[in-house]
Amino acid sequence: MRALAAVLFFLVSTLAAAQVLPSWNDGEAKTRVVHFVQAVSFKNSKDYVPSADRIAVFDNDGTLWAEQPMYFQFIFMLDQVKAAAPKHPEWKDNAVFQALASHDREGLAKLGQKPVLELMGQANSGMTVGEYDKTIHDWLAKARHPKFKRPYTDLTYQPMKELLAYLRANGFKTYIVSGGSVEFMRPWAEKAYGIPPEQVIGSQQEVKFEMKDGKPVLTREPKFAFIDDGPGKPVGIYRSIGRRPIAAFGNSDGDLQMLQVTAAGPGRSLVLIVHHDDAEREFAYDRESHIGKLDKAWDEAKSKGWIVVSMKSDWKKIFSFEK
Amino acid sequence: MRALAAVLFFLVSTLAAAQVLPSWNDGEAKTRVVHFVQAVSFKNSKDYVPSADRIAVFDNDGTLWAEQPMYFQFIFMLDQVKAAAPKHPEWKDNAVFQALASHDREGLAKLGQKPVLELMGQANSGMTVGEYDKTIHDWLAKARHPKFKRPYTDLTYQPMKELLAYLRANGFKTYIVSGGSVEFMRPWAEKAYGIPPEQVIGSQQEVKFEMKDGKPVLTREPKFAFIDDGPGKPVGIYRSIGRRPIAAFGNSDGDLQMLQVTAAGPGRSLVLIVHHDDAEREFAYDRESHIGKLDKAWDEAKSKGWIVVSMKSDWKKIFSFEK
Repeated sequence: MRALAAVLFFLVSTLAAAQVLPSWNDGEAKTRVVHFVQAVSFKNSKDYVPSADRIAVFDNDGTLWAEQPMYFQFIFMLDQVKAAAPKHPEWKDNAVFQALASHDREGLAKLGQKPVLELMGQANSGMTVGEYDKTIHDWLAKARHPKFKRPYTDLTYQPMKELLAYLRANGFKTYIVSGGSVEFMRPWAEKAYGIPPEQVIGSQQEVKFEMKDGKPVLTREPKFAFIDDGPGKPVGIYRSIGRRPIAAFGNSDGDLQMLQVTAAGPGRSLVLIVHHDDAEREFAYDRESHIGKLDKAWDEAKSKGWIVVSMKSDWKKIFSFEK
Repeated sequence: MRALAAVLFFLVSTLAAAQVLPSWNDGEAKTRVVHFVQAVSFKNSKDYVPSADRIAVFDNDGTLWAEQPMYFQFIFMLDQVKAAAPKHPEWKDNAVFQALASHDREGLAKLGQKPVLELMGQANSGMTVGEYDKTIHDWLAKARHPKFKRPYTDLTYQPMKELLAYLRANGFKTYIVSGGSVEFMRPWAEKAYGIPPEQVIGSQQEVKFEMKDGKPVLTREPKFAFIDDGPGKPVGIYRSIGRRPIAAFGNSDGDLQMLQVTAAGPGRSLVLIVHHDDAEREFAYDRESHIGKLDKAWDEAKSKGWIVVSMKSDWKKIFSFEK
């Protein structure tokens, strides 16, 4: 019976493999992904992992959706700062505000990340989390990407969405683990990726409980509580999941520690990096980029045999709107 | 067809209600719980809630297991401080350590919570999270409760474990939301309550990513990152779940804000407080207690019609080891 089941499973999984991940070209990357999934989910496999431990973590910016010419959340926050400016006449003399308003990238780089985040934090502090949620929905409905002239949520990667669905169909629990803030991703992550709010891990602004007009609300404070980037990613995973992932997906050095922790697990693991090498269909950047720099993690991927996906040659399609 | 389905459902659910929650006496508390669960989970009900939004949150200390004569985690941390003392000769002159070592409760109360937590934080800082996990397992295996002379994990409440299972059987997702630390609960919560690590929300000590002997690890820092108590509980829920619970269970004023947020939802909600009024089988305490004080939340329960469970008269059994 067991042998028969194994043969049947093999036949079914081979047939299934030919049909899964339709936007992926047949090749090493796809084959290794499919083999890994079969190895950990087939009950009689030596690498079998119970479903509860099949945890897969995905970076968001540059891994599940585009991140050029600037993180989309950064563009949203910029728009928020502009919208809030009339209420903050004191910003007129603020060097960060001046640099933001005049799109002075060099000036911003000189000022550093901290004062920029602080000003952005001020722009939406005092809002309840419900009001902030609505702000994001409203912005996503009208904002358009400068290159593609489409809503930002159209710029999610079709092959990665197929991968998410494929993993879930095989008993995996899929999480986002992003440097972007959890509040910014939750309003649209379920529709875009099938990932519910409780499986979105990210940076977090401080929020405070208070009674407002007799109702309990959470309001936003002008301060970050947690930065889920680089060495912060394994910390965010530990805090929110408390299990080591067996599969991790990223595209930049900000994902390195998350990939390392996943690769260091006791059993078989899958570590994959998306390489942006398609200037025509998307963007091409890696070692020299300010946004989504891929340098150390690339070297480590090569030395450790992690999968590096070429968007240009491994993916038939990048966005679902492509012909 | 719809009418037939409704009749069938009613029959089945009435039969089922007679069998669920066997350690609960038939009475108002049990009836209200069962009616709520049926109202939100029956597809044709006007109060129907999709399964993904059936979020139930449970305080731990005093709600799912006992908390007297002292929070069990506090006893664990005391034992840890004692064990670490030989490595910290400088503690000899530390007022907090002296008060802890001599069980000087009055002295400790005068010193306040902060220096006590700081000393406790020092006792296990530098450990990796894996080492800390093992410390908890080892302690739980040998520590015994002063009154019951049993392992602390025997002091979980049988009626609440039945309630957890009943909710899950009806499509609820059950979470712990505790002032205790997440690291202390995760190692045993799945076995005791059927709640997996990713559904345990609690206070959190700071942890840091580092490479140790070429392996990526997380080590504990002598500092709290988040206190999940009182107004912190709705913050913890927002950070980790991102949905409003429709059912909340607590026993003390430290749960008040979590209960308020749950009760303030747009649809039907269930809010329940466990009242410790059984000195014989467990402990009796409420408004005047230092641990698990129930005062403001009790008044609010009365004025808002929340369920208050009498452990003495609503529960046939408190612990599974009772005859």
